[in-house]
Amino acid sequence: MICVLSGGVGAARLLRALSLVVEPTQLRAVVNVGDDLELHGLMICPDLDTINYTLAGLNNDVTGWGLAGETWRVMSELAALGGASWFSLGDRDLATHLYRTQRLREGATKTDVTRELSERFGVAVTLLPVTNDPVATVFDTAIGTLSFQEYFVRHHHDVVVRSVRVEGAREARLTPEAHEALSASASVVIAPSNPLISIDPILQIGDARALLRARRDDVVAVSPIIAGAALKGPADRLLGELGFAVSCLGVADFYGDLVGTWIIDERDEEHAETLRARGHRVVVTTTIMSHEADARRLAQAVLA
Amino acid sequence: MICVLSGGVGAARLLRALSLVVEPTQLRAVVNVGDDLELHGLMICPDLDTINYTLAGLNNDVTGWGLAGETWRVMSELAALGGASWFSLGDRDLATHLYRTQRLREGATKTDVTRELSERFGVAVTLLPVTNDPVATVFDTAIGTLSFQEYFVRHHHDVVVRSVRVEGAREARLTPEAHEALSASASVVIAPSNPLISIDPILQIGDARALLRARRDDVVAVSPIIAGAALKGPADRLLGELGFAVSCLGVADFYGDLVGTWIIDERDEEHAETLRARGHRVVVTTTIMSHEADARRLAQAVLA
Repeated sequence: MICVLSGGVGAARLLRALSLVVEPTQLRAVVNVGDDLELHGLMICPDLDTINYTLAGLNNDVTGWGLAGETWRVMSELAALGGASWFSLGDRDLATHLYRTQRLREGATKTDVTRELSERFGVAVTLLPVTNDPVATVFDTAIGTLSFQEYFVRHHHDVVVRSVRVEGAREARLTPEAHEALSASASVVIAPSNPLISIDPILQIGDARALLRARRDDVVAVSPIIAGAALKGPADRLLGELGFAVSCLGVADFYGDLVGTWIIDERDEEHAETLRARGHRVVVTTTIMSHEADARRLAQAVLA
Repeated sequence: MICVLSGGVGAARLLRALSLVVEPTQLRAVVNVGDDLELHGLMICPDLDTINYTLAGLNNDVTGWGLAGETWRVMSELAALGGASWFSLGDRDLATHLYRTQRLREGATKTDVTRELSERFGVAVTLLPVTNDPVATVFDTAIGTLSFQEYFVRHHHDVVVRSVRVEGAREARLTPEAHEALSASASVVIAPSNPLISIDPILQIGDARALLRARRDDVVAVSPIIAGAALKGPADRLLGELGFAVSCLGVADFYGDLVGTWIIDERDEEHAETLRARGHRVVVTTTIMSHEADARRLAQAVLA
């Protein structure tokens, strides 16, 4: 079994790539829930949904988020009513949130609902929310404190961030399933998701960090920074704002002694020696999965 | 000012009729909330919405409920996920529930949200939920205890009812606005809504019943039973099951000494003498509003 620490889009792509070379049933994703939000009374889990949708082949490749074949009737009517429509919820996507919210109200856990949704979507990878307890990633910014989605969607991550914290992390517990995946999988892969706001909110839960540190040699991380830039999202900007080098070295600094092996892009080969000098094994390969061949090569590098 | 005790469809039609002969701003509807429900995490207020939609001219005359021009994308996707889809929520209708739920989460009252929605829909009649406290009409039936919508929608009101009760009614308070409407309007009209499950859940709140009894001469009721049958819904069946005559006389028994004037249909003229003998004034007219002329005539009878 392989355990993948996962945010949204980047992790979904890595999981899809890994599914090309191993049985999907051998993959377990431990997924960030720090950007989950309640809106209009609905519980929305963007990272879990992105992964489910992507692995089901239902993701919208044009927008880079949401579902293919989506319609927007509810949102347009809500906007006409003067309702909060800054967080776009498609009609098809809304069905997921109605389903989840109803099941949570009936007493199901987020873990239960995620498993049910994966089954309905025909996804064979096991998706595990890192915790069923409430946590919320919060940004202290130049314009005040923002929730994750206020920062990310409402302000298009275009504000200066002073610090990031995960409210509730101290009290939250790993689910038994996430604990088992982190401790008993043959290897643990840190997906090329945003280290600061997708992966760290996983590492802050319970003894996640300690579990990885204790088995550092089995931990492989794929750098989300390539030639000084993030493929998607604000990881590069945030690293700089929070005092880290905007490179795979900065990410390595951030994760510290959790990672045994770094997988970095060919364009970052110059940093390989530095990482090796710090005690990491290093694999240099193409990490951008623009074609299936690239995805397969990256997956094989991760598994090797 | 005229105050109208209101359920859903029947009340909406009476309010539309009254709007033909008086300024809509002179009308205040005190509306049942006993069949409000939380589903998928959303707060749904069927009677308030039916009235708003009808007065806005957005009601669906074909189905007799919901909105014109409705689409069903979310529900069909939810059904595909195996979600609870027995209570049909159209895409357009869902926007109303998302709006309401979000505003309630922000601290607005049901009264506030109702006013906001009426404004957005361009409805000049004032709609007042009878209470902002939680109440729920519950049915003890031959197949067990059912919530209002389980009884009404899921089982198509096709089960034997042994008793009806309104949970929370004893603790619930009239809103100040509803209290004012009931006590200070020039007259109070009881709409031809279901007496047992639409009007009684209003009368059970706070001192609603006492307020009407104290001004019985100003209280006008329109019989919802015509020639032994309800125009719509299970009022006839329920009256029989709960031991009342299935006629305007049974309804008059149920309301008792609250009503000064009864408006009954021409087809029930035979009962006029009995009602007069019991101390009611009686107006006999066409109470089915199948044309605007009929609606106008009924409205004029009510106002006279």
